Amino acid sequence: MKKIQISKAFTLIESGPVVLVTTNDGKKNNIMTISWTMVVDFTPMFAMTTGPWNYSFAALQKTKECVIAIPAVDLLDKVIGVGTCSGADTDKFEKFMLTPVKGKYVKAPLIKECLANIECKVADIVKEHNIIVLEGVAAYIDNSRKEKRTIHAVGDGTFIVDGRKLDRREMMLSKLPSGL
Amino acid sequence: MKKIQISKAFTLIESGPVVLVTTNDGKKNNIMTISWTMVVDFTPMFAMTTGPWNYSFAALQKTKECVIAIPAVDLLDKVIGVGTCSGADTDKFEKFMLTPVKGKYVKAPLIKECLANIECKVADIVKEHNIIVLEGVAAYIDNSRKEKRTIHAVGDGTFIVDGRKLDRREMMLSKLPSGL
Repeated sequence: MKKIQISKAFTLIESGPVVLVTTNDGKKNNIMTISWTMVVDFTPMFAMTTGPWNYSFAALQKTKECVIAIPAVDLLDKVIGVGTCSGADTDKFEKFMLTPVKGKYVKAPLIKECLANIECKVADIVKEHNIIVLEGVAAYIDNSRKEKRTIHAVGDGTFIVDGRKLDRREMMLSKLPSGL
Repeated sequence: MKKIQISKAFTLIESGPVVLVTTNDGKKNNIMTISWTMVVDFTPMFAMTTGPWNYSFAALQKTKECVIAIPAVDLLDKVIGVGTCSGADTDKFEKFMLTPVKGKYVKAPLIKECLANIECKVADIVKEHNIIVLEGVAAYIDNSRKEKRTIHAVGDGTFIVDGRKLDRREMMLSKLPSGL
């Protein structure tokens, strides 16, 4: 996994892929599957929706840290598996044969099998709406992975895989942050 | 355009497509392009990031209404055009030959050329983070459109078009809201 400029990290999330979010509560690692995320700022700041119904929420609230790991489509069935069992009674890294990798700024682990990982600090929890605001502090990409297509949950049990990529950089130049 | 159950509206947004958001400030219609959105609740509640830097924000704040219109890939260049000029000096419906259609619950117009439209009320504005929380009140799909692939902004001027759809309903059953 290679570190990338943090100013580019928002491009890992903006397209709306399903992500895995890891936490470490001081005793053990956990993972949750999250489809409800968005970019909030280029700096980068992200938002995601979660709450007490997710076992990971307690760790997130306590440690104010997590890692957003972005899986490619080859991990789809593990991603669904992670999202349909609970860290309360399951070691999800073990069950789904995912490999935790030590991060640099947070205790939550990166996931080795993912395409990209973003170490994040919790900047705010907007309780009324169950929105967690995160600040990305370091980002990594694994360029050696052949499968680079991410997956987008529709919400009805189906998933859309990335298709063609269209380049509109020229039309967009006035709106792109510098250095992108 | 055919009305669909409001309980299914979140499935129009969850995959993370670029959307057009319309407003009407009492005098004129306007449109902005937004890539930073997420689902917040199945009811449905949505969040999007925008602020005073968008001309539409004033109308959104004043009227507390908007429409989220979901374009397919055939509208990509219009979507970018809408996102790179300002309603301050441009009638975007006219310039991009988009057709406003009267909604039922809000004064902001639906966009005829879009795949789907969701009439929304502003439920809250979380000013510290420029997050607008929206409640969807009515949703419509145009099933007659042949092009159904939506587009996902990467953020660097490139866009990912929907590719294959994978069905994992059986694995997901425990997590799907009833009726989906």
